[in-house]
Amino acid sequence: MILHSFFSSSAAYRVRIALHLKGLTVEYAAHHVRRGEQFTPDYLALNPQGLVPALETDSGTVLTQSLAIIEWLNDKYPTPPLLPSDVDQRAQVRAFAYAIACEIHPVQNLRVLRRLRKKEGLSAERVNLWAREVTEEGLDSCEKLATGSATRFLYTDAPSLADICLVPQLANARRWGSDIARWPRLASIDAACCALPAFIAAAPENQPDAE
Amino acid sequence: MILHSFFSSSAAYRVRIALHLKGLTVEYAAHHVRRGEQFTPDYLALNPQGLVPALETDSGTVLTQSLAIIEWLNDKYPTPPLLPSDVDQRAQVRAFAYAIACEIHPVQNLRVLRRLRKKEGLSAERVNLWAREVTEEGLDSCEKLATGSATRFLYTDAPSLADICLVPQLANARRWGSDIARWPRLASIDAACCALPAFIAAAPENQPDAE
Repeated sequence: MILHSFFSSSAAYRVRIALHLKGLTVEYAAHHVRRGEQFTPDYLALNPQGLVPALETDSGTVLTQSLAIIEWLNDKYPTPPLLPSDVDQRAQVRAFAYAIACEIHPVQNLRVLRRLRKKEGLSAERVNLWAREVTEEGLDSCEKLATGSATRFLYTDAPSLADICLVPQLANARRWGSDIARWPRLASIDAACCALPAFIAAAPENQPDAE
Repeated sequence: MILHSFFSSSAAYRVRIALHLKGLTVEYAAHHVRRGEQFTPDYLALNPQGLVPALETDSGTVLTQSLAIIEWLNDKYPTPPLLPSDVDQRAQVRAFAYAIACEIHPVQNLRVLRRLRKKEGLSAERVNLWAREVTEEGLDSCEKLATGSATRFLYTDAPSLADICLVPQLANARRWGSDIARWPRLASIDAACCALPAFIAAAPENQPDAE
């Protein structure tokens, strides 16, 4: 399989964690998103959305959207599971993942920040404040969601889809200047995750295209 | 079950479609999002994210995040299926759903538009243009994703999670002033969906709190 990735893309980071948790080795194809390499004709032929990540499977199918890729990996390679077997718990894990992937991440991604800067004329300082504040408000909600659970990871005793979404978003929060100690439960889960080989191997700084 | 909803919330609209497709009847609890009723202490105790929809199940569990609720409904009430049984096709349907729920919807929701207007001081006209343009760019991608499939609905011959996400987003596109004829495949799927009783029953104008 070939993973189309960019070291600092947090959506690609999610998929890298899932691949490492599943113990799968893939070829790594780097596309420099800040230089627009995801818009080359070759890449657009592969993924017309012009987004990383994309996963080319051994049968030649191209999968897109990080969460769809991770669900596919979990369907195809069930061990270790990234979702609980209990239906209610599975909904809880997915809800947390979506609270990040549908509420926080899209509002602070490169495309939106560029639009704010170039099209709406906001200063670099205001754009950074936008990214920091929307991330902090979203993570405040996530901390409330996660409090009360006594498991080793967010909702389970082994990392799930929820943890996979959390760690890259906290990395972004740090990048925008937030102190993650603001979210004690999230910070402790982050520390537990970041000690695991799969999360270390998936980290931006450990990718072949890291700068 | 009790559905916490607001007639014009497109995330709640998705869940309403899924409930009707599954033939499930629920109690309807309206929360006027534009008046901030999702931030009352009672509602925050139920869903600390302060978002609709939420689904209270018969066992008293509160499910949040529209896509997590729909996956739960599909897990709990498998017939009719809202996802294909083939793993690759399931990934394709989810990718389309996320291309809307993680790329378009969050960038044009009320919270972001309010922030642009009140905090960043954009004019009402520029805010509307923001909503229209981010929606159009996103749906341009979706049209590319959906072209090539010859099924009656987006990827299947009965409505799936992809169609459930499409119809409310096209309703928003119309609201921002877009002509949906710009996306021929999406527009034809929309017409097929909107002729079905489940989609009609779920439409904003047919809810008890419609204005």
